[in-house]
This record gives sequence, C-alpha cells and structure tokens, in this order.
Amino acid sequence: MSLLVLGTVALDNVKTPHGERRDMLGGSASHLAMSARLFTDVHLVAVIGKDFPQKHIQFLKRKGIDLSSLKIGSGKSFRWEGEYKKEDLNVALTLATELGVLIGFDPHVAQHQRGIQNIFLANIDPDIQMGLLNMMKKPQLIGLDSMNLWINHKKPSLLNLMKRVDLFVANDGEARALTGELNLVKAAKALRRFGPKLIIIKKGEHGVLFYSDKIKFSFPAYPIDEVKDPTGAGDTFAGGVMGYLTKAGKINEKTLKAAVIYGTTIASFNVEGFGMEKTAMLTMAKVEKRKKELLDFITY
Amino acid sequence: MSLLVLGTVALDNVKTPHGERRDMLGGSASHLAMSARLFTDVHLVAVIGKDFPQKHIQFLKRKGIDLSSLKIGSGKSFRWEGEYKKEDLNVALTLATELGVLIGFDPHVAQHQRGIQNIFLANIDPDIQMGLLNMMKKPQLIGLDSMNLWINHKKPSLLNLMKRVDLFVANDGEARALTGELNLVKAAKALRRFGPKLIIIKKGEHGVLFYSDKIKFSFPAYPIDEVKDPTGAGDTFAGGVMGYLTKAGKINEKTLKAAVIYGTTIASFNVEGFGMEKTAMLTMAKVEKRKKELLDFITY
Repeated sequence: MSLLVLGTVALDNVKTPHGERRDMLGGSASHLAMSARLFTDVHLVAVIGKDFPQKHIQFLKRKGIDLSSLKIGSGKSFRWEGEYKKEDLNVALTLATELGVLIGFDPHVAQHQRGIQNIFLANIDPDIQMGLLNMMKKPQLIGLDSMNLWINHKKPSLLNLMKRVDLFVANDGEARALTGELNLVKAAKALRRFGPKLIIIKKGEHGVLFYSDKIKFSFPAYPIDEVKDPTGAGDTFAGGVMGYLTKAGKINEKTLKAAVIYGTTIASFNVEGFGMEKTAMLTMAKVEKRKKELLDFITY
Repeated sequence: MSLLVLGTVALDNVKTPHGERRDMLGGSASHLAMSARLFTDVHLVAVIGKDFPQKHIQFLKRKGIDLSSLKIGSGKSFRWEGEYKKEDLNVALTLATELGVLIGFDPHVAQHQRGIQNIFLANIDPDIQMGLLNMMKKPQLIGLDSMNLWINHKKPSLLNLMKRVDLFVANDGEARALTGELNLVKAAKALRRFGPKLIIIKKGEHGVLFYSDKIKFSFPAYPIDEVKDPTGAGDTFAGGVMGYLTKAGKINEKTLKAAVIYGTTIASFNVEGFGMEKTAMLTMAKVEKRKKELLDFITY
C-alpha cells in the first residue's frame, strides 16, 4: 500500500532555547513523509522554488520518498521563521511567513499516483487540498490537518472539505477555534459532526485524544526532558498514524490505537532534535524500542 | 489499616460558569477524607470555628470519618472564596481567604490515633504539618501536598518537611515553582532529590505523571465534558491514592498504578458537581464502573 501526502515543503528558520538553525528542510509534507516512510511508500505532492537547495531534494530522495509530483514553481520557496520561548515550548511564535511559490500553487499528481488510495492532506490552503482530492481516482482513507490561518480565513472551504475526509487531526487550539468549544471532549464531538468519522486532537506534551462514535481513547506523550525543537512534531505524529494505518490496511480499535502509539513514539524523536535531525536517522528498530518504553510508561 | 489526614476544613464560596454556591463544606482535609473513606478508616485532624455549621460536621460523621481530633478553635472558621473562568477551568482565581482559626492552629491528635501508620499531610502551613508529624509514633507511609503560598513564603520549612515524607503530590504549577524547572520530567527528578521517594505531578485535565527511581508512568484524566466545579479535585485524587495504598498495605508498581487510577477515577466525579455533591454519594460500585471505563479509555 502507498500513501500520497500533499502539503508544504519549506525552508525553516527556527530559534529555540537550545539554539538556532537557518534554511532547514521543513514543511508539513516533509515532516509527514519523513515519519510515514517508516511504514509505507510515500509519494509527496508539493511545490518548491528554483532557489530550493538541491541537498534537501537529494536528502528526501535518499529517504525513499517519491518526488514525481514535487513541482518546481517560478518564485521563491515557501519559508517559515519561528521561535519557541522557554516558558512554553508547546507554542510556536511565527516571526515571518513568505508564501512564495505557494501562491497560486496548483498541485499536479503524476498519472501513476492517481490510483493511490490512502491520502493525507497536510497543512496547506484548504482549496489546494480540495483540488488534490478531486484529482484522485479512488480514495479509501483520507486524512486532513489544517491550522488557525485557514480556520480563520477559509472556514467555509475547510468545512466543505471536512465532509469528504475520514480522519481529521487538529491540535487543541485549532479544535477549540474551529468548534467554539473549550472542553476538548465537546470539541471532538463537534468536529465529528462536521463529517470526519475519526477525530484526533493533539495536545502536545499532554498527548492525544482520539474520538469516534464507537472508539474513544487518550494517551499521554512520551516524557521528554530536553525538548530541542518541536517544529513538525504534529506532522510527524500524523505521519506515523497515517503511515501505520496504510501499512495495516484496516481500521479497527487495535490498528487505531497502534497508529496513535506509533505516531506518539516517532513525534517524541522529532522534538529531541532540530528539524529532521532525529527522525531522518530513525529505523524501525529504534522506533520499536522506544514504543516499548512508552507502553511501559502508560500501561496499567 | 487506618489513614490519618491533617489539613483544612473550610467554608467555600465558589463561582464557576455553571453557577455559584456559598458556605459549602470544603478544605483540603475534607475533600481528601471524602475520597479516602471509600478504602479505609479515615481520621481527620483539623480546626474549625464555633461558627461552623453543625450540618457539615454531622455530614462528615455520617460518612464514617473519625472526628476525634477535629478541634473547635476560638475565632472564625477558615473560609475560601474562588472563581473559575470559562476560559480555563483548571485555574482557580482566589477572590478571598480568611484564615480565621487557622492562625496559630496547633494540631492535637487523640491518643488512640497516634499509632496510625499512614499519614497524609494535606495542604496547610508546613510548620503545622511538621508539628503533626512529630506527634505520630510510628509513621510508615507519609504523604504530603502543599501549595504556592507555602512554596513562596515558607520554602525552608517545606523543604525540611520533604526530607521526611515518602510521597509528594503537587500540581504542575507548584512543581515548577518549587524546582524552577519548566519541564515536568525534570521537575519530578528535582522533587525526588528533595527527599520523597514517590513523586506525583497532577496536570488537571491532562492527567498525572508518576516518578520514582525505578517506576515511572503517566495516565490521562477521565474525559469529562461538563466540568462544574474543580475545587478539591487534587485533594480528592490524593485521597484516592492514599486511601488505596493504605488498604493495599504495600507499595509496588501494581499498587501504585492502581492507586493513581483510583485517584483519577474519584477525582473525575468530584469535578462533575459543586463541592462534594458527587463524591459524597459515591459507592465502590460506582467507582469500579467508572474505573473500568477509564481503563478502556487508556488501555493499549
């Protein structure tokens, strides 16, 4: 089974209490792919500018990610600059966003990828997400992530899209903003009413809440005592969830719980290094070892 | 086995988005006792004023709590007035505190209670907690809770006390304030270095982190979609933990995890009603039923 991921491929400048990095490979689709590749073939749909460093592209290729639908647009690459303060490493302060080639991005999916059944629409303009979805021939499992920018400025497009997806992933702030419910259990119920059968609310260091009509569960995060850079942790989590579900090939309580555990495990590596420093080096052996530690930590 | 609980017995005025109550029975020792009584005999050590409503005293007696060491001081009863805002039901805004009889309170323990081996020092001035401890003949398991007021104003007394206790319970803000560590895993390690072998950090709606040299675990809270009044949830949790450990009569990974699960379960009832509305009505059958739901919710 394969997974098709639409999202951003970015150049990130990040500052945290542990240091600063410039021009790192970032973006929702990159982080998602880097995590999902551990379980399945990953096909990336995104756009970069002509200025995008070849080393980043080669790096993605070396990790086995199919770049057939990585477009090179005219314009500058998408850039994000953010900072995390010591007081709350959970919250990114966006210092600058340069959309560049993202403006007017019209995703193209290569013919041989249009039949892929598992699709994740990582964070990007919901109209672009919808455009991609309309190109796919027989989607079976569609995941969606978004962010406050689109919740605030493109809510009708986002709500329209939600009717067509199976799995919706949001962080706590986004879930509250989209539903108007402060209580996360109520927020999850409200998100369910928007369409997606499977709802995952990410609470950063506090773990994850899963909600569906029949199955509900909650897991804490793996305890990390040195968070270096949380950028991409949510995408890394979603990549683990979607990658595992793609590999498993079926949705039930067992596979959903395993998917969330794998996502949590891989995201815990992400925050231990800048950018993809840690996740790029991961093997399933390392993942399984930490997954076991996580299970010891949360098992009654 | 019996449990001796020192702490406050208060009159609470509480306002939350769900309503307002005046002159409710409150205080750290009351909430703790109301929860621990489900597992063990509870002996309460506290002080009230002559103005304290007889109905509250009778109520505690009816619940089987031994009031031999409930002192009636000269002066007004301790009062707390607080409010919870819709935006963050986890955080109590203290509107007024009238110490009354708490000033100069010198706890007295009846002779027949001095041999009790399990002791919980619920939130009250650390010098009073130390005074009680010095009165006990052969403490085996000593639990301690505190609050920011004492962390800020009586830190030397608190640190001194921590050297003598086995189990320290703190919420996330207190753990951070006491250790200067923002990361909760680091904060737990720092608390361990202060003396107590068993550390529990309470994260409100996000559950609990347990830390000891050999055993570490984390559990989410039971999901509540209508939090009416969180006052006393932390004490209710600690009462469940300490009550269960007293009943179990031994400390190991199994009993510690069970204790935290029972504490979490009983605390989830507490927040569903004002004051002790819900916890006073609890039976072990109700607790076991919800504990099972909680386990379904967090079991991999």
